[in-house]
Amino acid sequence: MKKIGILGGGQLGKMLCLAAANWDMDITILENDAACPARPYCTRFVKGDIKNYDDVVAFGQTVDIITIEIEHVNTEALHFLKKQGKTVHPNPVSLDLIKDKGQQKAFYRKYRLPTSAVWYFDSISILKEKIDTITFPCVWKSREGGYDGKGVSILKSKADIVKLPDERCIIEEMVDIDKEIAVIVCRNENGQVVAYPSVEMVFDPKANMLDYQMCPSAINKKVEKKAQALAISVIEKLDICGLLAVELFLTKQGKLLINEVAPRPHNSGHHTIEATETSQFEQHLRSISNMPLGATAMRLPSVLLNVVGADGFSGKTKILGWENALGTEGVHIHLYGKKMTKPFRKMGHITILNKDIERAKQVALDLKEMFKVVSE
Amino acid sequence: MKKIGILGGGQLGKMLCLAAANWDMDITILENDAACPARPYCTRFVKGDIKNYDDVVAFGQTVDIITIEIEHVNTEALHFLKKQGKTVHPNPVSLDLIKDKGQQKAFYRKYRLPTSAVWYFDSISILKEKIDTITFPCVWKSREGGYDGKGVSILKSKADIVKLPDERCIIEEMVDIDKEIAVIVCRNENGQVVAYPSVEMVFDPKANMLDYQMCPSAINKKVEKKAQALAISVIEKLDICGLLAVELFLTKQGKLLINEVAPRPHNSGHHTIEATETSQFEQHLRSISNMPLGATAMRLPSVLLNVVGADGFSGKTKILGWENALGTEGVHIHLYGKKMTKPFRKMGHITILNKDIERAKQVALDLKEMFKVVSE
Repeated sequence: MKKIGILGGGQLGKMLCLAAANWDMDITILENDAACPARPYCTRFVKGDIKNYDDVVAFGQTVDIITIEIEHVNTEALHFLKKQGKTVHPNPVSLDLIKDKGQQKAFYRKYRLPTSAVWYFDSISILKEKIDTITFPCVWKSREGGYDGKGVSILKSKADIVKLPDERCIIEEMVDIDKEIAVIVCRNENGQVVAYPSVEMVFDPKANMLDYQMCPSAINKKVEKKAQALAISVIEKLDICGLLAVELFLTKQGKLLINEVAPRPHNSGHHTIEATETSQFEQHLRSISNMPLGATAMRLPSVLLNVVGADGFSGKTKILGWENALGTEGVHIHLYGKKMTKPFRKMGHITILNKDIERAKQVALDLKEMFKVVSE
Repeated sequence: MKKIGILGGGQLGKMLCLAAANWDMDITILENDAACPARPYCTRFVKGDIKNYDDVVAFGQTVDIITIEIEHVNTEALHFLKKQGKTVHPNPVSLDLIKDKGQQKAFYRKYRLPTSAVWYFDSISILKEKIDTITFPCVWKSREGGYDGKGVSILKSKADIVKLPDERCIIEEMVDIDKEIAVIVCRNENGQVVAYPSVEMVFDPKANMLDYQMCPSAINKKVEKKAQALAISVIEKLDICGLLAVELFLTKQGKLLINEVAPRPHNSGHHTIEATETSQFEQHLRSISNMPLGATAMRLPSVLLNVVGADGFSGKTKILGWENALGTEGVHIHLYGKKMTKPFRKMGHITILNKDIERAKQVALDLKEMFKVVSE
């Protein structure tokens, strides 16, 4: 069996390693943090910088297939490795395109894939100059480096411009959002493509933070089918092998708009470990090894809760509410093994399976109060 | 969270490590084979002999809870560790009893738990002396050291005695078996007990070897209930915390007889990883940490195929039929990572999930031909 190398050793890398463990697959991780979540479960660990050209090229020499668990890697090195004959998934051209939110938007427009309107600005001074061309409220996005909500700001009025950093950016029109959903698709080298049932992100209206995710989404079959078809169309046009998570807005007018994509395992697919026939992690391994893809059918409805570091606590990780959580039926706990917690850091997730999704939601809201990551 | 130490680093140890990984649990493995299946997935690996008193005692000092993945360990050391205040599951008294098939039989008779008739012989010469008291055919069992069918012989006639080793043994009456089933039960320190649905072992009548396992068993509800009640009764009388696999015969007369038990994760429970709400491995971790036990309900019917080294092949492991297997729906492959294969060595297992168990059986029989472990 071919040797797989993963750039990044966070929780996504860890869960890839655990899926690979079932098949005794050989996984090497490149990561600068020697105490990263993936380290205890990989076949080999290489300490190095995923953003450094030499580190990535040297790492690539030790494996057959190179993949990522985070976009912010040195793609120049990936281009070189591909030229050298290594298998690199996702392909570096598409990865470059996705990493630049401006190019990503241009790609959707080029292929007439539905997305919100966009304006480009090469610096903050140009944005200020042309401020009168913008309708407020709107969404500011840094063209590169955004992750987990960073690099994105809602601008309510001209006054909000002062808080922005001076970098290349895009401004997107404010969409009248009914729901936010995500569809994960996967494709192998033979061109086989599968789509997972969509997942709905449910936000806490007070805190404006993700409350939980649920699958299935509360959308009708027609929209579900359309969302899946759109996601498949994106992965095919990007010519990506591996997973692609496609985040979509369903507008109040019933239109689907592509928000953005991630070419790797994704938070919106964590429920697939228990809730669908093939987990996103196993699916990614199948696809990058050009194996037949697995079934994506849902076994049971699920609600997924991100476990983040409690506000006000920084330091050595300590878990509260363990017994309560394990005493509740349908609860599947995943802790990533991050030794240090800080406010809102992603420390784990909990998947709640239940035939009755309303019951699963209730359990999720209860666990949000009971299960906490604090510091010692 | 408490540190767990496991004696033994085979596939059962590996799958315990993978269950523990979801919770970031700290697992240390004691094992003499540095290339054992569990090693890549444990938190710490200690090279040492699980049968050696000093090795086991020294190992015990480094952890809080000690458990096993194989019975053949130094129980004297476990008695010492327990006296010292360590948590030891299963309890060493019951482990001693189970390891000696003579004592195990006596235990069933003492508590009026149904089992086949038995006669005790302290040496082969005594057995030969008393040969006329035995009815043939019958079953010979070594009192200690049996594992995976070793230490067991069917004696068809007096003539078969010559092939037996000179050791303490028992002779069991030959039971008129309709079905062989296994019920896995689990118990925590609070006395909470759960039983998994029974599993039926289906034998190839030609080769007289296990063909596959299936869950649910093809038995009626009344027998299922009785089998579960029996298994619960055994774990309670043995006062064991942790898993206990109870192997039972269903006779042609419809009677349930206890064959033997194993106080650890068991081959008959591997399907629980995908087919039930809580895997046997997670359940064992819950129970020995005295956490609430998880639900044991079946999600989908399953057939389980042991993947053993193909006859005629010894050497570096090589897998054939990988693509065929992954191309079939409902197939979940587990390879244990044993570097060297030999005929009939347990190299992995495949779980096939399907609403229609007849379809799952067909897939199992197909895979038996297609998916092979050979040598390079």
